[in-house]
Amino acid sequence: MPKKFSGIGKRVPKLDTPELATGKAKFGTDVVLPGMLQAKIIRSPHPHAIIKKIDTAKAEDLDGVEGIITYKDVPKVLFNPSAWYPDFLEPKDKYVLNKTVRYVGEPVAAVAAVDEDTAEEALELIKAEYEVLPAVFDPEESMKPEAPKIHDLEHNIAAHVTNSWGDLDKGFKAADFIFEDRYTTTRQAHCSMEPHSCAAFYENGKITVFTVSQAIFKIRRALSEIFSVPTNRIRMINSKIGGGFGAKDQIILEPICIALAMKTGKPTKITLTRSEVFYGSTTRHPCIIYLKTGVKNDGTLTSRQVKMIVCAGGYASHGPLVSGAGAAREVGLYKCSNFSYESYCVYTNTPEGGAFRGFGNPQQSFAVESQLDTIAEKLDIDPIEIRLKNGIRLGELDRGVGLRLLSCGLQDCIKKSSERIGWKSKTKYCGSKNVKKVGLGIACEKLNSGAAQILDEFSSAVVKINEDGTINLLTGAVDIGQGILTTLAQVVAEELGISVNDVRVAQLDTDTAPSDRGAYGSGSMYISGEAVRLAAEGARKKLLNIAAKALDVKAKDLEINNGEVRVKRKPNIVRQMKEIVPEEQIISAATYKATKSPPSFGAHCVEVEVDTETGQVKILRAVCAHDVGRAINPTIVEGQIEGAAVQGMGYALTEDLAIDSGGRTLNANFTDYKIFRAKDTPNIESLIVEAIGPTDAYGAKGVGESPHIPPAPAIANAIYNALGVRIKDLPLTSEKISRALKKI
Amino acid sequence: MPKKFSGIGKRVPKLDTPELATGKAKFGTDVVLPGMLQAKIIRSPHPHAIIKKIDTAKAEDLDGVEGIITYKDVPKVLFNPSAWYPDFLEPKDKYVLNKTVRYVGEPVAAVAAVDEDTAEEALELIKAEYEVLPAVFDPEESMKPEAPKIHDLEHNIAAHVTNSWGDLDKGFKAADFIFEDRYTTTRQAHCSMEPHSCAAFYENGKITVFTVSQAIFKIRRALSEIFSVPTNRIRMINSKIGGGFGAKDQIILEPICIALAMKTGKPTKITLTRSEVFYGSTTRHPCIIYLKTGVKNDGTLTSRQVKMIVCAGGYASHGPLVSGAGAAREVGLYKCSNFSYESYCVYTNTPEGGAFRGFGNPQQSFAVESQLDTIAEKLDIDPIEIRLKNGIRLGELDRGVGLRLLSCGLQDCIKKSSERIGWKSKTKYCGSKNVKKVGLGIACEKLNSGAAQILDEFSSAVVKINEDGTINLLTGAVDIGQGILTTLAQVVAEELGISVNDVRVAQLDTDTAPSDRGAYGSGSMYISGEAVRLAAEGARKKLLNIAAKALDVKAKDLEINNGEVRVKRKPNIVRQMKEIVPEEQIISAATYKATKSPPSFGAHCVEVEVDTETGQVKILRAVCAHDVGRAINPTIVEGQIEGAAVQGMGYALTEDLAIDSGGRTLNANFTDYKIFRAKDTPNIESLIVEAIGPTDAYGAKGVGESPHIPPAPAIANAIYNALGVRIKDLPLTSEKISRALKKI
Repeated sequence: MPKKFSGIGKRVPKLDTPELATGKAKFGTDVVLPGMLQAKIIRSPHPHAIIKKIDTAKAEDLDGVEGIITYKDVPKVLFNPSAWYPDFLEPKDKYVLNKTVRYVGEPVAAVAAVDEDTAEEALELIKAEYEVLPAVFDPEESMKPEAPKIHDLEHNIAAHVTNSWGDLDKGFKAADFIFEDRYTTTRQAHCSMEPHSCAAFYENGKITVFTVSQAIFKIRRALSEIFSVPTNRIRMINSKIGGGFGAKDQIILEPICIALAMKTGKPTKITLTRSEVFYGSTTRHPCIIYLKTGVKNDGTLTSRQVKMIVCAGGYASHGPLVSGAGAAREVGLYKCSNFSYESYCVYTNTPEGGAFRGFGNPQQSFAVESQLDTIAEKLDIDPIEIRLKNGIRLGELDRGVGLRLLSCGLQDCIKKSSERIGWKSKTKYCGSKNVKKVGLGIACEKLNSGAAQILDEFSSAVVKINEDGTINLLTGAVDIGQGILTTLAQVVAEELGISVNDVRVAQLDTDTAPSDRGAYGSGSMYISGEAVRLAAEGARKKLLNIAAKALDVKAKDLEINNGEVRVKRKPNIVRQMKEIVPEEQIISAATYKATKSPPSFGAHCVEVEVDTETGQVKILRAVCAHDVGRAINPTIVEGQIEGAAVQGMGYALTEDLAIDSGGRTLNANFTDYKIFRAKDTPNIESLIVEAIGPTDAYGAKGVGESPHIPPAPAIANAIYNALGVRIKDLPLTSEKISRALKKI
Repeated sequence: MPKKFSGIGKRVPKLDTPELATGKAKFGTDVVLPGMLQAKIIRSPHPHAIIKKIDTAKAEDLDGVEGIITYKDVPKVLFNPSAWYPDFLEPKDKYVLNKTVRYVGEPVAAVAAVDEDTAEEALELIKAEYEVLPAVFDPEESMKPEAPKIHDLEHNIAAHVTNSWGDLDKGFKAADFIFEDRYTTTRQAHCSMEPHSCAAFYENGKITVFTVSQAIFKIRRALSEIFSVPTNRIRMINSKIGGGFGAKDQIILEPICIALAMKTGKPTKITLTRSEVFYGSTTRHPCIIYLKTGVKNDGTLTSRQVKMIVCAGGYASHGPLVSGAGAAREVGLYKCSNFSYESYCVYTNTPEGGAFRGFGNPQQSFAVESQLDTIAEKLDIDPIEIRLKNGIRLGELDRGVGLRLLSCGLQDCIKKSSERIGWKSKTKYCGSKNVKKVGLGIACEKLNSGAAQILDEFSSAVVKINEDGTINLLTGAVDIGQGILTTLAQVVAEELGISVNDVRVAQLDTDTAPSDRGAYGSGSMYISGEAVRLAAEGARKKLLNIAAKALDVKAKDLEINNGEVRVKRKPNIVRQMKEIVPEEQIISAATYKATKSPPSFGAHCVEVEVDTETGQVKILRAVCAHDVGRAINPTIVEGQIEGAAVQGMGYALTEDLAIDSGGRTLNANFTDYKIFRAKDTPNIESLIVEAIGPTDAYGAKGVGESPHIPPAPAIANAIYNALGVRIKDLPLTSEKISRALKKI
């Protein structure tokens, strides 16, 4: 008989819904500290320059200015904003403020004043003299030997990542056809509703930071290195986070804020303007992908060569790991015996790239899934069939990460999404005579839950059972809006046989929270969830031992349900939890370190309508099937699917943070930078596939990032299906479509 | 070879010294919440009355007034401010605001307004009409059948506690002499430097309280009952506490503050004025003690009968337990085979008595130690000898609490303190011809470390080892200025072989803190300390297991010192802790429940000079010897001895919160209520005696309360020794002494 679940698998509304709906939730921007200063940042007007002189005297004299920092006032410690474990792939290439600036918008100085107006006035009074250096914006240009050097290196390559198996040449020789394409992807902005904000104070040798960080322990460690302060003298407290998508998985404001707080001796707060968020935080890395694939007539992939050029921007940050992730994770989706991948993470004088939902995979997948349709057409194989044929299956080795699949819902996702959209009856729209042409497209994805093969992936948790049977849960997991804290409360409810409403999750504070890797890599439920499960299981054991003593039975003969402990098969012998929990309460702590990272799978089928006169694309339907393993909370899973799919649609069609020939961002506002809004978005049909393997956290797998991956190639494939036009350059704008149509 | 300690036993300065010394510590009064209202309380002018009508309309109309509560607005739930475990000894006899008021100064209504001035102005506009009831102020009067009834009971006795063993009559028959005396003690005010202060807000069904509570979990549970809210929906956060002494071990402001926050929907803060702290918080219970003792010629106690009348004030609060504590704890100090104790906790129309350093024992001890000197004189036995003869010894049964002594430093304390003061050479000053006469006195004490025989005495702790080898410690223990958090950090340092500076203790917050009984009963080091020791020991084991794997040795062959793990006898094989701690860190949780409560002992010898013309007493010397078991931090132990001894001297000589015939407090200010100041205080010579038994927490015992107990009787005995005048009524004022001298 399968285990019946009481807490998980349920459509529990997010626990913070009331405070979100009533506007009472306290975000980073809502933090108020008594006597707090407001800070503003002055930014470089040049894409590449050395600060020769910076005069802050006039600004310092302004009434209400309490402190100014420039590159002269910050620790002489290089760091990498990604804050990965020391030196893992990531070069440390920046100071809190740099004497050489490397992109337009890079912070040059920061002013703390009694209010924002004064701080802004002071910015005007700071005069910097620059020696302007030659700049380079295109990563392929930047790789050339003659390109201006952005860092003190012989070249502009921050990282060169390779991966291979089999024999590439042999594979290509065995092919009936070889396909070679170049794909380019754009600079996408995260567009969290909440801008970056940070407040800090420094007292008695201790730093306290109020922030909105996706990975608070990782950032604490990096700050500890930057400021040469032990980790336990840094207290980081997270406010509620209004969206992260990766942008809050790195250091952006904390060190500037801390340096100002140290200089002024007062609490200091910085909040970015919306424009600053666009050019002064971080973006998805624009990539150039050269994809060469050999295939047999029957569609078998014989050989594949990938060259990916990742535009890092002025600093490396997450770039090297993003460069590697495309290879390690997405590439394992389709089996190919001979494979070679190389990726260059290249400095350019453009805003910094960083972590972003999908982490290299949306770029890679756009190439792979677009080309797969080109191959299918050439071989006259249905796009569904070529994916079913080459897609990895249960028990097979995922060579990208070196793991054998213990669960795999890929085939199910392909079948269910294509069935739902009515694939067979609708394909081959291409060539209809209407002005508005309709097309169908599919794309698939695979994304591991966490990255235990590459990083230390861990979490800890503490469960406290209060004397009235309610729970306080301590976790280092970060809720960036995705609802993980609700899901974790369900885990506790499941293990302890109580209502999810009886679980309260403590505010995240490094002084008190058990350690956690952070919210990234689609690993929160799989990793933090298992840690919480272990802690709750420990609490349950303690509780049952106490109950067993009180009831004079064996603990194994007891069960908990609805807040009551019962003797199995003797339903009359029952105690309320609050009758059992002693006055000293029950506490249980656990740490979990992941050794696996079970991949989740997905397939999106989309139907688009393209106006052949304007090139305008309208998405009519999107069926998004995802194998998420055990769906702990189907509503939250659907929320993730819908949110990521919409963000993926924007990536496909409209989003493009444009840089002009001088390195200036052209559209740092929501008027000119177009994200998908409600009216642009079709009804998204989410299909949850539960391929449950013998992995931890009840067999749950990640879902936070994966639905962002298929939309761009699925839409590109649908446009091709509608028009016979293949666009290999994101976003798939009406201009590009019109231009392409004219060439037919 | 005795274990060598690396962390404990050291004179570590209190970890919060810098922030205290620089004025940066944030006390309850420093709490600022955005948009916070200030509240004020209107108080009863009558000692006993029914509120017939209360008109708040005019006050509500005042600009800036946001909410007013009266008895009509508070939950209809009776509670006891002591918040002991449900119904343990303590009657629940009050509402948050009562329709019948029972002492002058009892809260009648509270106003929340945009600032303090507006709140005060509003108080003036609230008009209450009272039906004045007859009042009674003296507890013996209050016990009479004809006394006005203060609560809805047949009599005014809130509790009647008894304890006895042996055969009282037989004991008195066997006596050569019988002594019968009546002693009275006064209403002492706690006089914490920091007044009571509380701030609260109510959002989304959750209550958040910023307070300064000695027993935050106990108070949370009581608030949960009062407001019918589960414990995990109440978050209580302690600010730094500027002294408690028991006054912050009960509910004073929290429910009023919460009720206002609920009514206004805004954060609301109340801070008591100094006057309000005197008459509106809590005091030591005034007591009347009838002590009848039978003795043999050789000084053997044959029988003892105690009747103690405890003046509770308008509500019972801690009164019943204080009534019991005198019997259970102090009485076991001197052996007596036949014993009977009865105590009446009596309602009167006076301000509420509550927990206060010593908890009934200073009162009881004043009687017992005073009479012992009367007995010694009658029998011509030296006061030192009679104490050595009758004092309980190692291995003997402490009948008061039913525990056999596993350690006992009483004899050592008596010997060392009397030797230090030069007892033999200086006694018998009585009768000297000078105007200023000098006298010596001694008194002893016994006080258990916690009260595990009566209450559930427990604590829990979580130790987190960070990746750089530093520590975050979570404890529910409360530092009320005594320095327990420093002592607990030493325990962690001891167990983990690191510096105490590497340990950071998290701010106390019920959402995150492991449960703890609170700071009372001299149990923090013994109970919370053992919980921390267990958690740190657990962390050490985990650390050594990881190190053992890394070094390929057995964990038992490793030792930690100075932040390094070494292989024993192979000093070259060494790793820094930070090299061993994995990125996922180490977490360890433990819960401790005490089964014993080892008593600490003490003896004070004082030398006084009395001006026979004015009756003025000057304390020339005070030698205070205390058996504290293992002294974890001798400086903190001495701080406790000095602080409590000074407070005891004030209790002896000057402190008396006086009530007039109408129940009004006469001296609710520091001009008229005289505490001991630096100039009044002699150099206190602290002698630490370490009688270490096989009890937990390294054999540490309590010291927070015990040095408050001996000063009053020791000084009374010294005055007698100087003048031949016995004063049985505290405080021992110059007026009383002059009056007594005139009677000789």
